[in-house]
Amino acid sequence: MEVTKIGEEGIIAIAQKATEVSSGVILGIGDDAAVVEIKGKLLVTTDLLVENVHFKRNYTKPEILGKKALAVNLSDIAAMGGIPRFCLVSLALPKTTEVNFVEGFYQGLKSMAKEYGVTLIGGDTTGAGSEIMVAVTVLGEALEEGVLTRSGAKPGDGVYVSGYLGDSAAGLYLLLKEKLGLLPEEVEKYLISRHLEPEPRLELGQLLCREKFATSTNDLSDGLVKKLQEIARSSGVEITINREKIPLSFALLTFCQQFTLKPLDLALHGGEDYELLFTVPAEKEEELFKLDLPLFKIGMVTGYDERGRVKAEDGVVLQDRGFQHF
Amino acid sequence: MEVTKIGEEGIIAIAQKATEVSSGVILGIGDDAAVVEIKGKLLVTTDLLVENVHFKRNYTKPEILGKKALAVNLSDIAAMGGIPRFCLVSLALPKTTEVNFVEGFYQGLKSMAKEYGVTLIGGDTTGAGSEIMVAVTVLGEALEEGVLTRSGAKPGDGVYVSGYLGDSAAGLYLLLKEKLGLLPEEVEKYLISRHLEPEPRLELGQLLCREKFATSTNDLSDGLVKKLQEIARSSGVEITINREKIPLSFALLTFCQQFTLKPLDLALHGGEDYELLFTVPAEKEEELFKLDLPLFKIGMVTGYDERGRVKAEDGVVLQDRGFQHF
Repeated sequence: MEVTKIGEEGIIAIAQKATEVSSGVILGIGDDAAVVEIKGKLLVTTDLLVENVHFKRNYTKPEILGKKALAVNLSDIAAMGGIPRFCLVSLALPKTTEVNFVEGFYQGLKSMAKEYGVTLIGGDTTGAGSEIMVAVTVLGEALEEGVLTRSGAKPGDGVYVSGYLGDSAAGLYLLLKEKLGLLPEEVEKYLISRHLEPEPRLELGQLLCREKFATSTNDLSDGLVKKLQEIARSSGVEITINREKIPLSFALLTFCQQFTLKPLDLALHGGEDYELLFTVPAEKEEELFKLDLPLFKIGMVTGYDERGRVKAEDGVVLQDRGFQHF
Repeated sequence: MEVTKIGEEGIIAIAQKATEVSSGVILGIGDDAAVVEIKGKLLVTTDLLVENVHFKRNYTKPEILGKKALAVNLSDIAAMGGIPRFCLVSLALPKTTEVNFVEGFYQGLKSMAKEYGVTLIGGDTTGAGSEIMVAVTVLGEALEEGVLTRSGAKPGDGVYVSGYLGDSAAGLYLLLKEKLGLLPEEVEKYLISRHLEPEPRLELGQLLCREKFATSTNDLSDGLVKKLQEIARSSGVEITINREKIPLSFALLTFCQQFTLKPLDLALHGGEDYELLFTVPAEKEEELFKLDLPLFKIGMVTGYDERGRVKAEDGVVLQDRGFQHF
């Protein structure tokens, strides 16, 4: 059945099933505006996902899309060290969209929302031409200790990432090029799930903020070099990374061997890894190591620099060249 | 020049020009999330505008679109009796979109934001297939006195609207059917501006809330009958309106005579008037009259009714039949 049969009211009814009564919500879906309460400072972030730009329906199940649409916003809250609380979800749907798609989307969204303590409080729904568009806004609370930004990095700080890089780009390659079946099943599954099912690093972000481990943070939604540049420019520093220290998964290496691609290209420019990138003052590094978290030191803040240059260990200035769609 | 030449960073730079330093903003555009402060309860509303569904580029100047995208959200805040504070604006743009369009859009948005004391704090920008999509989220503050909802109407309350109805539908007709030049110029100008440049009734909403004039409110984004039904169902009441009392502008009557359309059809089902619809307890009506505001009493809440029926003066039950696109 197509959405045009159930209309806007039908879609709202599906959305309402994806929300639960929760603390802080004074008025949820169904009036002109939602009314909520937030303690302290309010964090707000929003992301658009457009069909055929950010996802394709042939490889993205609606449940997975619902999860990812929320996850990418939660990753932004994580990078601020905050606690996500509420979300608004808007859908622009071509008339021929299946009702199953909408139901699956909200099921996925609900499961991710539940996992991270987020409540759906509103949104909008409308027709569209030929492409589905999803707009998600997440509201969160800042910790009492403050927020993490991109602008606090200082010379002497270590530069860290919270997980393997490049996996997501490899997963996307497999999906876009339809190259399934050439690699061990578990390798393919891992890489694809790293692209389709990112896990927002909320606990880590809050820990970095609460314990003042991080002087700056960014979420790796785009490529590493671009995100390093954002920190370097916002902080007015030069960052030097050691390319050999960039964490690469065994799956990525296997993938790159099969398709004769360079793993570092994917790790430096691939994007959508949704790991945290952050800087740690020297005097805090030992304390952080002791926590035995899956963290990787990939470089150092090596000086002040208004231009915010990012260099490799051999002095070469790294340029953001965006994600090469192969 | 097309937007693909200036890329995401170029678009963000244009958006940043549309924002100003203002109270309550701790961190605006340019980090993973915005950080703001709100006193008391938080109001949140969001709307999607999709090209060829909600607007066409051939008759909508980008400045006007920027204004309207914000205005329709402000109208929702008005219906809650709140004070708008911050907005997030996301744009999905086909690669061929002119940079002029983006600049004009943000200029229009900025002028409306300034007029109503709203600060742009974030958003997202992305490519799209063939249609422009605009997603706006507005954050506001509830008054200390509380919020207005759809659910407080009681038998005996008067039913009011804040302005002429049907004008917006008439303006849209002129634009869609390209019927310009057949009516006096000021009539056409008025009807078109009522469609393209709605004025959010924020002062009125706040007055109705602060002075407890209204027991329920709704904004007339869709047709009157649909919005009356929303109040009736949410409040569990029956509403009876007097069709002769529905305020119709001289321009609308002139328009309908020219094109042999029924003015009441446009007023009851046309939508997009963005006036406020609200109910007032009998004991408050005299006090409200004395304020000499442009308000029109169109009916009464005539009893309790779980089904939330809306009737005309002759007892006929009115059905929402949506907006007929002629």
